[in-house]
Amino acid sequence: MLSRVGDKWTVMVVTFLGTESLRFSELKRRIGSISQKMLTTTLRNLERDGFVNRTVEPTSPPSVRYELTELGHDLLEPVSRLADWTRENTRRIEEARSHYDRLTGKQPGVQSRS
Amino acid sequence: MLSRVGDKWTVMVVTFLGTESLRFSELKRRIGSISQKMLTTTLRNLERDGFVNRTVEPTSPPSVRYELTELGHDLLEPVSRLADWTRENTRRIEEARSHYDRLTGKQPGVQSRS
Repeated sequence: MLSRVGDKWTVMVVTFLGTESLRFSELKRRIGSISQKMLTTTLRNLERDGFVNRTVEPTSPPSVRYELTELGHDLLEPVSRLADWTRENTRRIEEARSHYDRLTGKQPGVQSRS
Repeated sequence: MLSRVGDKWTVMVVTFLGTESLRFSELKRRIGSISQKMLTTTLRNLERDGFVNRTVEPTSPPSVRYELTELGHDLLEPVSRLADWTRENTRRIEEARSHYDRLTGKQPGVQSRS
């Protein structure tokens, strides 16, 4: 369960929906770096976990709007706190990384999970 | 960077090291469900990001002890907040999941990232 709530796509979707409900296309555009498939899976998992409501709007063609549930809004607090902390400490982490790379002269195995 | 700090293994390692420094074997035993390779990679990434210090102890054979740095202790607050929130709300999430599964009669694609 922890891997779901701490997952970066969860953090981004919950953060964006924290201010307003959004259509799929709007959400994808705002996040930017997410694939159609990953956003679809993330939203379906968040809906199943009770964090997001999904409403089909009677437009032509029909469109789907997503909003946070009460549980989703509750999750927003610790998730935003983690996102804010990361943003506020990015420089310290980057400095630690370049220091480590100078010392070791190489980069550790798993760098893709950056 | 967000995927690192929100990653479940990061959350677990930082939470356990939050109370005391630990040897690799002790940390692995406490987390339980982590592979040798994943713990090695997680610790190396956390060291590179400046969250963890690694000390080789002059035992025979030599052993390695890990402790949180100041940056690591700073990260502990939002990470523990997220871990606590998840524990406190596990029942609500499980209820939402069973409700969703009854409604849809099937489980969404990506369930392995639970």
